[in-house]
Amino acid sequence: MIEMSGNGLHPRSEVDALERLLDILGDPKRIDVARGIGDDCAVLSFPGEFDLLLTVDTVISGIHFSTQWQSPYGIGWRALAASVSDVAAMGGEPLAGLVALGIPGGWDEELVGIYQGLHDLSARLHVDIVGGDISALPSGLSISITVLGRVKREKCVFRNGARIGDDIWVTGALGGGEAVRQMAQRGIKGPEWDRGLMEYERILPRIEEARFLAQELPLSSMIDISDGLSTDLSHICRMSRVGAALDETHIPVHGSALFVATQTGLNPLELALNGGEDFELCFTASGGSGIRVAEEFAERFGLQMTKIGRITGSDLILRDRSGHSRPLNPGGYDHLKAKERGR
Amino acid sequence: MIEMSGNGLHPRSEVDALERLLDILGDPKRIDVARGIGDDCAVLSFPGEFDLLLTVDTVISGIHFSTQWQSPYGIGWRALAASVSDVAAMGGEPLAGLVALGIPGGWDEELVGIYQGLHDLSARLHVDIVGGDISALPSGLSISITVLGRVKREKCVFRNGARIGDDIWVTGALGGGEAVRQMAQRGIKGPEWDRGLMEYERILPRIEEARFLAQELPLSSMIDISDGLSTDLSHICRMSRVGAALDETHIPVHGSALFVATQTGLNPLELALNGGEDFELCFTASGGSGIRVAEEFAERFGLQMTKIGRITGSDLILRDRSGHSRPLNPGGYDHLKAKERGR
Repeated sequence: MIEMSGNGLHPRSEVDALERLLDILGDPKRIDVARGIGDDCAVLSFPGEFDLLLTVDTVISGIHFSTQWQSPYGIGWRALAASVSDVAAMGGEPLAGLVALGIPGGWDEELVGIYQGLHDLSARLHVDIVGGDISALPSGLSISITVLGRVKREKCVFRNGARIGDDIWVTGALGGGEAVRQMAQRGIKGPEWDRGLMEYERILPRIEEARFLAQELPLSSMIDISDGLSTDLSHICRMSRVGAALDETHIPVHGSALFVATQTGLNPLELALNGGEDFELCFTASGGSGIRVAEEFAERFGLQMTKIGRITGSDLILRDRSGHSRPLNPGGYDHLKAKERGR
Repeated sequence: MIEMSGNGLHPRSEVDALERLLDILGDPKRIDVARGIGDDCAVLSFPGEFDLLLTVDTVISGIHFSTQWQSPYGIGWRALAASVSDVAAMGGEPLAGLVALGIPGGWDEELVGIYQGLHDLSARLHVDIVGGDISALPSGLSISITVLGRVKREKCVFRNGARIGDDIWVTGALGGGEAVRQMAQRGIKGPEWDRGLMEYERILPRIEEARFLAQELPLSSMIDISDGLSTDLSHICRMSRVGAALDETHIPVHGSALFVATQTGLNPLELALNGGEDFELCFTASGGSGIRVAEEFAERFGLQMTKIGRITGSDLILRDRSGHSRPLNPGGYDHLKAKERGR
């Protein structure tokens, strides 16, 4: 799970850069790394029924978040949410976190706010923050959060198991995060903004939802939607060596995205397909299998799970309401090309 | 193990800042965190004979290292060494690492060099780099390395167990790292510089040495010398609620520090007492116990272990060759006050 983000890392693709680093790092050898680089978490095999999951995510001001309109509290909360969401995406249970903060001088109050946000989410999720490291950065603010989790070995879900004919599902509704960022950029205020920001700053990673799905269904793959559905689904397809066909009319679009669309003329479907950091789950399961738990899922979690398409032999395509197909280009947050997201 | 480093975090002490954060974070509750914040690593109790160790260290250009005279290779190597050294200090065995890099645009070649250094040390230590995260920073270079390790539960060594009458020991010789930084700052070249830099860029954390000591001796405390002996010993004393008396003539001064002293007029003892990042071990064991393994230690590791003083009831003092005592002020790298170290 080497992930790359931020601007300026030269015009080569993420995959190229990864492969280059992999050449240098080589394959893990000593401990039994069941799955390593390329998934949401590294999976370390230990004696007993559980494997350990290890993941780190870094968020940086001006790239992943904005200190202009986000509160320190929300910045801390969302930073932890991003790392925990990677554990959720494997079907795992987060146990402990380490927080490495890089912070400019004179940020005392913000530091307290960030920790308060971290604390409140960690308490809610029963994740212990067991340590960390604070360094002074000359400018900007960076938060690296490592999360250690565990997963029952046979319930661990990877990105690379999707098979032709599997149904593709997502939890919740998509595009809400991008809608909030659009409202912030455009200075849109009012009750939709207030509601959107509240939800944005207290987003909940889908831990219990993912564990339920891994328990109840023969999941063939799962990922959390951090870069946007189109990009994250393309990761599943690339690693599973398959394609996907999505039904445009089935994509669950978040209410905030619909609202922003009415205000700005933006296409709500584009927000839902390409907006990052919704932290919902995208997963695949054999054709027809998901439907039998959808009702219980909705009742248990107060959250819809929606079938949005099917795994195919190759290519990513999107079918519109009249049955026409067009290519679905991964258009989420491109880590190596995007300029700024947070502001 | 929250550690703080870098400049600009306001004129209050590290301890105050830590306590403030601890108030916010509260005590870990859910998993059995045998020891958490305040030691080199967080210790997580898991079923079986091993506990897990978890630590993160961040190094930042211009503060912990210099891109002016250090190679990318050496920067990567030392960054991993710093985190692994924390695992060594608990008597543990490092297993896996995660690397979170913040890097400016256009640093392709440096990135390869950093990873090569990381790789070579990780291969040498049999630590698997199982994942990570790369972000673009607007300026500067930051490397956060998380290391997961394990330790046999009864062999885990903490900072807080030193008892009055215990002997205080260090491995190796001290002040070599500070000597190299002084040579770099002053433009001192020649064979001493070449040799010093080579050693600096390929420093080896004392993993096997620490495990041997934890196995063979009833260690009452241990720490790695990252901030300078005077500061790191003060951490042991504060957490153990004891004092220490060191014999100035017993402090093993590194050859590079002696050389730099002849060139600059700096006091070699000050370099040894206060120079940071030697990554040697400072440990305590009941009076007289260490001597019986010192010879075997030297033979096995090609490294001296030296008794430098004794744990007392209170205060840190230094006895000179004529028997006079003066206070030993923690004068190592003060994380919250120091300006720059790397350059």
